[in-house]
Amino acid sequence: MTLKEYPMITPEEALATVLAHARPLSPVQRPLAEAIGATLAVEITAEKHYPPQPTATVDGFAIIADDPSSTRIIVGEQLAGHYNPDLQIGPGQAVRITTGAHLPTGADAVVMWEDVLEENGAITLQKTIAAGTNFRPVGVDMAAGQTILAAGTHLGPPEIGLLASLGNTKATIYPSPRVAVLSSGDEVRETGMPLAPGQLWDSNRYALRAAILQTASQPLDMGIVPDDENILAERLQKALGQASVLVTSGGASRGQRDLLKLWLEENGQVLFGRVFQKPGKPMTFATVGGKAVFTLPGNPVSALVSFTLYVRPFLLKLQGRSETLTRLQVKLTTAEKHAPDRIEFVRARVWHEDNQFLATSTGYQGSARLLSLVGANALLRLPPSDEPVPAGTIVEALLLPGKSLFSSR
Amino acid sequence: MTLKEYPMITPEEALATVLAHARPLSPVQRPLAEAIGATLAVEITAEKHYPPQPTATVDGFAIIADDPSSTRIIVGEQLAGHYNPDLQIGPGQAVRITTGAHLPTGADAVVMWEDVLEENGAITLQKTIAAGTNFRPVGVDMAAGQTILAAGTHLGPPEIGLLASLGNTKATIYPSPRVAVLSSGDEVRETGMPLAPGQLWDSNRYALRAAILQTASQPLDMGIVPDDENILAERLQKALGQASVLVTSGGASRGQRDLLKLWLEENGQVLFGRVFQKPGKPMTFATVGGKAVFTLPGNPVSALVSFTLYVRPFLLKLQGRSETLTRLQVKLTTAEKHAPDRIEFVRARVWHEDNQFLATSTGYQGSARLLSLVGANALLRLPPSDEPVPAGTIVEALLLPGKSLFSSR
Repeated sequence: MTLKEYPMITPEEALATVLAHARPLSPVQRPLAEAIGATLAVEITAEKHYPPQPTATVDGFAIIADDPSSTRIIVGEQLAGHYNPDLQIGPGQAVRITTGAHLPTGADAVVMWEDVLEENGAITLQKTIAAGTNFRPVGVDMAAGQTILAAGTHLGPPEIGLLASLGNTKATIYPSPRVAVLSSGDEVRETGMPLAPGQLWDSNRYALRAAILQTASQPLDMGIVPDDENILAERLQKALGQASVLVTSGGASRGQRDLLKLWLEENGQVLFGRVFQKPGKPMTFATVGGKAVFTLPGNPVSALVSFTLYVRPFLLKLQGRSETLTRLQVKLTTAEKHAPDRIEFVRARVWHEDNQFLATSTGYQGSARLLSLVGANALLRLPPSDEPVPAGTIVEALLLPGKSLFSSR
Repeated sequence: MTLKEYPMITPEEALATVLAHARPLSPVQRPLAEAIGATLAVEITAEKHYPPQPTATVDGFAIIADDPSSTRIIVGEQLAGHYNPDLQIGPGQAVRITTGAHLPTGADAVVMWEDVLEENGAITLQKTIAAGTNFRPVGVDMAAGQTILAAGTHLGPPEIGLLASLGNTKATIYPSPRVAVLSSGDEVRETGMPLAPGQLWDSNRYALRAAILQTASQPLDMGIVPDDENILAERLQKALGQASVLVTSGGASRGQRDLLKLWLEENGQVLFGRVFQKPGKPMTFATVGGKAVFTLPGNPVSALVSFTLYVRPFLLKLQGRSETLTRLQVKLTTAEKHAPDRIEFVRARVWHEDNQFLATSTGYQGSARLLSLVGANALLRLPPSDEPVPAGTIVEALLLPGKSLFSSR
């Protein structure tokens, strides 16, 4: 039962290794309503011009703009959804029209009803109007052949609306990866259960499920596994049978009882086992039977930071999205102590003030102190040093997903 | 069948009116896993110190730091999850300990296993160590009585983890509002169905459902209603019976066939019926039997812009969150034409470059052109003017939710 001493690789090498093993899942067709929030797997082009015919943008009367007639007789009406293709106008004529209706043949402008006097079946314009006014010409919204959504686009409200407006009932998207989540360790107990001294309630499965949901993936809860070789092996096999990715936390440090890493060495390929960073040094990335396994440290902050830096971009890439954390230069407003021997990712609050981005840490940076992540919107990447970084120093911040830099809290 | 001419109010007055009618829903208790992404309705305080006892942060040996003994006999082991309260050490003694285990009585430091020589049941330190090293003292993560989560906090990964780590199996949260969505108009057809000339596929129900989901609310699809007084009245009553908020689109402009506004005037209280803005002027906000009704314009861009400006903050406030769009000063890189008679919300892309925020519009700003919202991350709020706004002008941008200002697309 000896463990390899894994070389310590940089965070950048770790991310590159992880991403090199992420292949986008095979696209699937889903009903449009189920594709909300997913990633489009194909390019969408407009098959024809939109609008296909000139279309009124106001309620009023379709006319010929430079028609000199003092009054125009109303010869019909063109209502949205009730198109009459035979309707046409000539000089001295007008057609009542509603927003969204196609212009009758011959018309080249729409005058708003507020701008006419209507009497005895005829209208008189109260102001002059130019040809081309108050309607959308053919193709102004989209031209035939134009690429309107690129493959890899996240399907939010306008994108889903656009697909519906083109008549799509389905969308070709990347499916949600199924991600098994498992906590490991004799000391870990299900939340709310009685605790013996030295035991603690499991927070990682809950936090990681929330983080997995934020990547549009599906978490699969595999519970808590004690430090028992056989139970662990059985649970890992079961998890890998049901999910395409496995994320564990706990039991992954370089101690005497590290059963997880041993199992991975025997049953798969360990790609790295230590990262030159704090928190998150003992993270392991492995493949077992072609499936990715991330064993994150047991400390709650370490687990979430490692997830955010490595598992999140992996899960996004499975869905066709190449997104890593945004990097930004920020100025420290307070001095920050940090790790002498590793790159430290300090949880911090970044805000915008006087045309610059300022940053301060969220207090005591213990790896078990989830409060250091509550209220954080960034990780400061501080290189190893024995000396504290003085206030005023410009450092690199990695922005946490879904957090604002501009709100007051 | 006459319609009132509603006064045109400013966007700020409209938002204030909407928010004045939003009362947070009654909090509910939910299992913790179901509370992910919801908003906490109560304040959470720590009931005791965390950690409750000094806790090792590395694997190694618990010792007395200033013990002058050259070797220390290993008198027992303290493993995470297997706390032995009787274990204690004195000079010349050490206890094997794993990360997460409580220190035995008498110990005041933990030395990492890499930093000792272990031989014949005793250890020799390979470097000196200070008292207080490698363990978390009592209360360092959270102190008894400390507020750790404020009411109104969004429950993301660290917050959910924190609740679990305190033994919570449930959370007291605001429930998700049920929001009925309905499209109106004879010209509107379900996507993919055959279209007669002048008809179009409904995109608004899809886009609005996606936008409602982004507010953690539950959309309820009430389909498409033709311009028929009786069908409309029946569907509106049904929607209000099943949901606490109703959002419609289409059929709300000041035309001759505006049945929706007439029904609202007869059955409820219309709070405003026109807003001094483009797009989105004909938006109506009403209450019917104590429930909120938003009738958005039928043009897809108008519907989404009005939703984002008014319905979204309303739905968030029902869930205890006071969030409106972040406002930011940005510099135009291109000249922008805009509405002479109203405030215009120009869909734009804002990005950060050379310590400033730059902006450009997303092209043709037609209210039906959903492409103007695809790729937009902000709305530029341009006051009415006959003249284009020149490049270089500083204007106000409202940031669209969930969009990055720092990514390349």
